[in-house]
Amino acid sequence: MDIEQFRRAGYQAIDRICDYYISLRDRPVSSQVEPGYLRKALPASAPPEAEDFQLIADDYQKYIIPGLTHWQHPSFFAYFPTACTFEGILGELYASSVPNPGFNWSASPACTELEAVVMDWTAQILGLDKSFYNTTEVGGGVIQTTASDSALIATVAARSRYIREHPHVAMEKLVLYTTTQTHSLGKKAGLVLGLKVRALEVTAEDDFALRGETLEVALKEDVDAGLHPFILVATIGTTSSGAVDRLGEIADVAKHYPFLWLHVDAAWAGVALVCPEYREACQLPAINAYADSFCTNFHKWGLINFDASCLWVRHRKHLTDALDVTPEFLRSKHGDAGTVIDYRNWHLGLGRRFRSLKFWFVLRSRGVNGFQRYITDCTKLNAKFAERIRESDQFCFAAKPFLALTVFRLGPKSLPHLTTLELNALNRAFYARLAARSDIAITQTDLNGVFCVRMAIGAEKTVEKDVDRALDVIGQEGRATLREWERMWGL
Amino acid sequence: MDIEQFRRAGYQAIDRICDYYISLRDRPVSSQVEPGYLRKALPASAPPEAEDFQLIADDYQKYIIPGLTHWQHPSFFAYFPTACTFEGILGELYASSVPNPGFNWSASPACTELEAVVMDWTAQILGLDKSFYNTTEVGGGVIQTTASDSALIATVAARSRYIREHPHVAMEKLVLYTTTQTHSLGKKAGLVLGLKVRALEVTAEDDFALRGETLEVALKEDVDAGLHPFILVATIGTTSSGAVDRLGEIADVAKHYPFLWLHVDAAWAGVALVCPEYREACQLPAINAYADSFCTNFHKWGLINFDASCLWVRHRKHLTDALDVTPEFLRSKHGDAGTVIDYRNWHLGLGRRFRSLKFWFVLRSRGVNGFQRYITDCTKLNAKFAERIRESDQFCFAAKPFLALTVFRLGPKSLPHLTTLELNALNRAFYARLAARSDIAITQTDLNGVFCVRMAIGAEKTVEKDVDRALDVIGQEGRATLREWERMWGL
Repeated sequence: MDIEQFRRAGYQAIDRICDYYISLRDRPVSSQVEPGYLRKALPASAPPEAEDFQLIADDYQKYIIPGLTHWQHPSFFAYFPTACTFEGILGELYASSVPNPGFNWSASPACTELEAVVMDWTAQILGLDKSFYNTTEVGGGVIQTTASDSALIATVAARSRYIREHPHVAMEKLVLYTTTQTHSLGKKAGLVLGLKVRALEVTAEDDFALRGETLEVALKEDVDAGLHPFILVATIGTTSSGAVDRLGEIADVAKHYPFLWLHVDAAWAGVALVCPEYREACQLPAINAYADSFCTNFHKWGLINFDASCLWVRHRKHLTDALDVTPEFLRSKHGDAGTVIDYRNWHLGLGRRFRSLKFWFVLRSRGVNGFQRYITDCTKLNAKFAERIRESDQFCFAAKPFLALTVFRLGPKSLPHLTTLELNALNRAFYARLAARSDIAITQTDLNGVFCVRMAIGAEKTVEKDVDRALDVIGQEGRATLREWERMWGL
Repeated sequence: MDIEQFRRAGYQAIDRICDYYISLRDRPVSSQVEPGYLRKALPASAPPEAEDFQLIADDYQKYIIPGLTHWQHPSFFAYFPTACTFEGILGELYASSVPNPGFNWSASPACTELEAVVMDWTAQILGLDKSFYNTTEVGGGVIQTTASDSALIATVAARSRYIREHPHVAMEKLVLYTTTQTHSLGKKAGLVLGLKVRALEVTAEDDFALRGETLEVALKEDVDAGLHPFILVATIGTTSSGAVDRLGEIADVAKHYPFLWLHVDAAWAGVALVCPEYREACQLPAINAYADSFCTNFHKWGLINFDASCLWVRHRKHLTDALDVTPEFLRSKHGDAGTVIDYRNWHLGLGRRFRSLKFWFVLRSRGVNGFQRYITDCTKLNAKFAERIRESDQFCFAAKPFLALTVFRLGPKSLPHLTTLELNALNRAFYARLAARSDIAITQTDLNGVFCVRMAIGAEKTVEKDVDRALDVIGQEGRATLREWERMWGL
């Protein structure tokens, strides 16, 4: 493909992306393909000779688009949102035209420098303490792929610090703390590192938040048993229910354990800190006072295309002490002099993409006000949704609505004597109906044995009428589930 | 930014990328900025109000481009190449317009299915054994970010298998084997996982390749000392010199250690397997016979934009046994039924980008023949370069040239009595002259105490005249270094 062929194919790609977004609302949200559909459609081997790009571009429309679930669809309310903005696409486009592995400053100075700058910009708009800024040259921020990577790196840094202070402790004695509501990233960090994970219990009465006393009892038990808890992964806005662990209480207990690292995962909710009115609910003062590391994913609810997980640490040396590798072939003048950041020592791999560009594009193109407006628009839509659930005779909350997430289930006033097991069966039937639809995407979860449904608002194109339609669909399927249930039990 | 604004900004981005490639040859290869240049140029905070995108796009040209080192420049011979093709850019562009976290099949079926297909296509064009294909449903391939991630995952899988078979072995007793020439990925896997790394010695006489007997002695020593070697990271084409560890000899020894995992890292050289004539030199038969896992990076010498690290395993269950996390909120109908791949359990994080699209675009647009032609063109250019070094009176090889890599140094016939220390000083002075130039990029390394210079060919735009110019520059700087040396010593 020469330059002029690329120009034509590039214009066409831009046009087709425009067409995609023009027609997005009319598409099914979830792909309706069956497993194996693509392997059946494609040849078993790469072609021996070059194919015309027009054919390839057309095949993308023909074979790939029907196999996509449209996470940017206005009726996508599943999991958490995945951001996609036009500015983000443009950031990725420019970045992908000048790829380099970015493992040190010299590899391409602009990449490292822009990352250091935009991580300070984002720290500032979220209200993070200055000790997390790159300008301190003590703390700092870095872009990772996912919140799982961020938590894994925090765990590696914490383990490394702990072992330096306690060199004779066996790895088998180390314990990573999460709660039963922590995202799979906690368990996965344990699996990857081969370390014990203890998931602390939380209760519905406490809105699934970790309490200080629970931590205190666990720490005492484990230390008495000769174990060494070295990190706690606390969450601001859990995946299942938006729970907010009580960082103040946690810190009161943790202060007696100086080598217990506090990693705060706010993968989804963290971007809401851009709005001053949510900072108290998201415990910003406690994050600023106590967190050793903090993560939020701008690629979820933060308008920046996947991948864009932000990790800030109070002491960058804990990362570099744990991860520094500098063979001769990676040495450089400025790296040797220590005057620059070499981001390879802040993450797991060596090479890294030029992800800061999309941050720069989106932050500037939207402005802080644009970010704030988007977040508050989503929370207002969720407030409306939650209000309708609250007023309903058939549904009830499974957890307190938080920001743009409402977790609810069928709990009809007409059937007040159902047991938890019966209610779970009822709700599994209800969810199966919702999951079978292609005009809405919504996901399930389990809260301490209670099966329920999550409504997460955040696609940028979602407006009030989409939430109204979702309420209609949910209401219809709820009523249909109840009719079926009553028929089955002869009620 | 609305759809029509995106269309205009998108066209402009395509045009500016075209301009960039039209002017690339005339740019300096390496950025000439000083540390901190960008922070000085940019505001300290994100703007409160939205800015016009035209201003942002212009600032990219003004502030970012001058801070880039141009890895796709025809005179870029440093490190290893980083691929960038127009088809790869288009693949990234389409993919970034439909982002989704891709953690399971249901998240967006096309993403998982296309990855499974293109990993089989690439396995096939490289001549990998069928047991590595996804169609076997036993082995399989997956796209990772970097070779460091691939090696880390292989190490996690190997450790997990080893511990399942030897549940009472302490982690402190586990040993990861590399050689002294293994890429930093070996040391980094050890750092991340907190495990011992033993770098086995290799010699210049063996072309820096690991021999079976070295491994045999180390295994005996370590096992006698109560240690448990559980993985060997062998390399086809080391970063420093293109060394090829002797897999046949290694396998002869390793067969007595059934739980010693053999990971073959061919991050750079592996793509050369696309040409049948290089398969013997790259030990394809031994890879196919003995490797538990194999990695090559198409984003280096394989025409596919960063990131595109391919990892194949003989038994996918070793990955999923080690890494499976399936909380309720990630369960899905097809995942529960086991009829689909859920790639989240094949890598470190949870979310993943839609990287298979660029593979599909590039593989089809170039065809197998196009790939082969590109690889052989590069190796021919390197053969010419190596021939000129061989004929020279001032330079000598520091290692046997391999594929598109030549490692050499100043070793003038006029100064036959220099010691290794003197030669190193001479070559550091020589390299400092090369590194100070902005019209060529080339890097240094150290081979068992011998300082030398690496010439790695692979930018797609590099043609014969660029290699000729590099030879001229290298010759000039070599002569200037020698004149300086002779003046200094009064010769």
